[in-house]
Amino acid sequence: MPKSGDAANDVSITSRRQLLRGGAAIGGAALTVGIAGSAAAAGNANNLPPNVPAWMKVPGEPMGSQPYGTPSPFEKDVVKNISNTLPQYLSASGRTPLQDLDGTITPNGLFYERHHAGVPTIDPKQHRLMLHGLVERPMLFTMEDIKRFPSESHIHFLECSGNPGYKKPYGKTASDLVGLLSCAEWTGVKLKLVLKEAGLRLNAKWVVAEGADAAALTRSIPIEKCLDDAMLVYSQNGERLRPQQGYPLRLILPGFEGNMNIKWLRRLHVTSEPAYSREETSKYTDLMPDGTAREFTFYMEAKSIITRPSGGQRLSEKGFYEISGIAWSGRGKIRSVDVSVDDGKNWQEAQLQEPILTRALTRFRLPWNWDGEPTVIQSRATDETGYVQPTLAELIAVRGENYFYHNNAIWPWRVTADGEVSNAADA
Amino acid sequence: MPKSGDAANDVSITSRRQLLRGGAAIGGAALTVGIAGSAAAAGNANNLPPNVPAWMKVPGEPMGSQPYGTPSPFEKDVVKNISNTLPQYLSASGRTPLQDLDGTITPNGLFYERHHAGVPTIDPKQHRLMLHGLVERPMLFTMEDIKRFPSESHIHFLECSGNPGYKKPYGKTASDLVGLLSCAEWTGVKLKLVLKEAGLRLNAKWVVAEGADAAALTRSIPIEKCLDDAMLVYSQNGERLRPQQGYPLRLILPGFEGNMNIKWLRRLHVTSEPAYSREETSKYTDLMPDGTAREFTFYMEAKSIITRPSGGQRLSEKGFYEISGIAWSGRGKIRSVDVSVDDGKNWQEAQLQEPILTRALTRFRLPWNWDGEPTVIQSRATDETGYVQPTLAELIAVRGENYFYHNNAIWPWRVTADGEVSNAADA
Repeated sequence: MPKSGDAANDVSITSRRQLLRGGAAIGGAALTVGIAGSAAAAGNANNLPPNVPAWMKVPGEPMGSQPYGTPSPFEKDVVKNISNTLPQYLSASGRTPLQDLDGTITPNGLFYERHHAGVPTIDPKQHRLMLHGLVERPMLFTMEDIKRFPSESHIHFLECSGNPGYKKPYGKTASDLVGLLSCAEWTGVKLKLVLKEAGLRLNAKWVVAEGADAAALTRSIPIEKCLDDAMLVYSQNGERLRPQQGYPLRLILPGFEGNMNIKWLRRLHVTSEPAYSREETSKYTDLMPDGTAREFTFYMEAKSIITRPSGGQRLSEKGFYEISGIAWSGRGKIRSVDVSVDDGKNWQEAQLQEPILTRALTRFRLPWNWDGEPTVIQSRATDETGYVQPTLAELIAVRGENYFYHNNAIWPWRVTADGEVSNAADA
Repeated sequence: MPKSGDAANDVSITSRRQLLRGGAAIGGAALTVGIAGSAAAAGNANNLPPNVPAWMKVPGEPMGSQPYGTPSPFEKDVVKNISNTLPQYLSASGRTPLQDLDGTITPNGLFYERHHAGVPTIDPKQHRLMLHGLVERPMLFTMEDIKRFPSESHIHFLECSGNPGYKKPYGKTASDLVGLLSCAEWTGVKLKLVLKEAGLRLNAKWVVAEGADAAALTRSIPIEKCLDDAMLVYSQNGERLRPQQGYPLRLILPGFEGNMNIKWLRRLHVTSEPAYSREETSKYTDLMPDGTAREFTFYMEAKSIITRPSGGQRLSEKGFYEISGIAWSGRGKIRSVDVSVDDGKNWQEAQLQEPILTRALTRFRLPWNWDGEPTVIQSRATDETGYVQPTLAELIAVRGENYFYHNNAIWPWRVTADGEVSNAADA
């Protein structure tokens, strides 16, 4: 499996250079367009500095005007993608602009949101977490109590189970399609530490988690997950959780569908049976072709998408491009990602950026020399269990037309002769 | 070496639980304070939910009011620590509030700043990078050119070399002391790819990098570093660089002192000798006891600091606390961190959070049962080269009284009987 670790660099550099030279070398293009375009440097490019831009001639902005920083004004359009077709604000979502991002960490300001009754404003001093039910010692925790437990930090993705649903419209951009997906470094307490402190009774099989929003969003979690990698989280990418991500406390269930990662967590009720709450009966279940309901579909299966180039972007000319995207699996680590640049006829194994972490986004990359002809590009992830990301047709064949959640299909992008990139499944 | 990976969890849980039970068990404390304080639940705690707070009785904030998110209003004091004693804004710094952060990633809004002529506002469409000097093909790149090169993403720390200087005042908090330190996932192009595209001449030994700020900050970088892990970076934690971190393009030299990681990068001049610029002669050099100057002190040596509990914080009562901090080394990975809770008499090996990455912050943690007596706590990092973080006295003995930069001393915190934590080196 090709990796971009240090040991592999000398080899991969060689192949990249060959690729750069093989097509319209971008260095050469820069040389021609750039230096030739600068009259001052044309005759003596090797000695003269470039022209001094206006922003070097005066002092820059002072310190202190932004004690909490914000992006450049030239990036003002890189914001969460909020649908304007939602019926009202109580049940709403804001998607991460995946096509504008690099790497694997999602900055907190662009982390996706999904709410069922808006975003509560909670004073952490007044917030309490109750732990009761089938335990020896029921407990009520303040946030200070929670922070005194031993802590851990882990990088994990979060994804809404309807990302996207099976039904059109699918949308134009990577964000429209799978922008209910983000990844962060979470810090908090392993849930099993807190449960063991309370003392689980023998018949404890489920933990029913409840949020402190006006929806009192409630989900039942199998005790096995609670005693594995589940966390009570108070920090995200170093700082305290944002209100939209559950400030001051949320549950993180690595690899499980997003809505189960209860935000604004106020209650853990240990039970012998699931609650069969609204969000695990009326919602977040699927009607199978035989008329039965598929429920408690916890794990987000292996999935990937090319983010650059992707829908809404444009290739300016034929020549070298890097295809870059993200892959993830709720079942563990990504083992490999294959990429096709010829509408699925041939597949090449992409490079994976290390470190490859469990239940986290993994960045993949493939050098590509576009010949200027129309084509379709797509990616296909395989996780460490051996599971291979399916096509949309394969999924529908198994799950039928009434399915909505857990669409982890391969997503193809069409590239036209003029370089326009669009959603090939929306045709 | 103890790690907090999955394989070690069962063992570590046991020792943690024993520790929790050994002192004033925090679960027990929570039970007593919490449940007993709730009249409604006192008689029937195992069945009743906690009282319904006000924020559950009305819908929360709507979507769309913050397409780019911000922290909770209850975290308004967690901002960059900007000195009010600076003579003017042209040369200024803003420190990361390390004592308020968890994990290892610094959110972009709190990433440290250090400027020599303010923060320029640069239109990326107008920005150019010139590569000239001892190369076969001088080049001028647009940002679009740079983004077409193969990319990589790596998590690395950045630290100012005067963090802190040797001279008092050292300050009260972890941020005052070492807040010119942050860590992020950087995405961009390996510098060696771009240099090889231009073709280095045989006598190319240095690359002189220049920023597009009004200071035209200029530093000379050995060619070995440029052909190793140096990067031309355009994204930080997923999104484009912030203006304060060099938007639209900065140099990242993993492990090298912060000012060499040139922001607003506009020029790379390949030479056979260093430039001996202001920032590598008048500044960022040190006067040794024998009267000679120590110059080109690239690498930030191994260092660590306890951030929780740390100066300005208070332990509310005796009992269990987790000691948590960060360690880093410009030379590679952190091998181990030792912690003393008895003023340096005894040392215990802390747990290191995985993954342990090269030239990145590493979080360390140690369970601690505070007996309520006055003491001094401190941490000592060892990196993969075997180098051990020194004491301040050891550093001064070698470097003399005129030294200012590269203070990587052990930093002790004093804990008084009433739980107040303060800087023990400031006494």
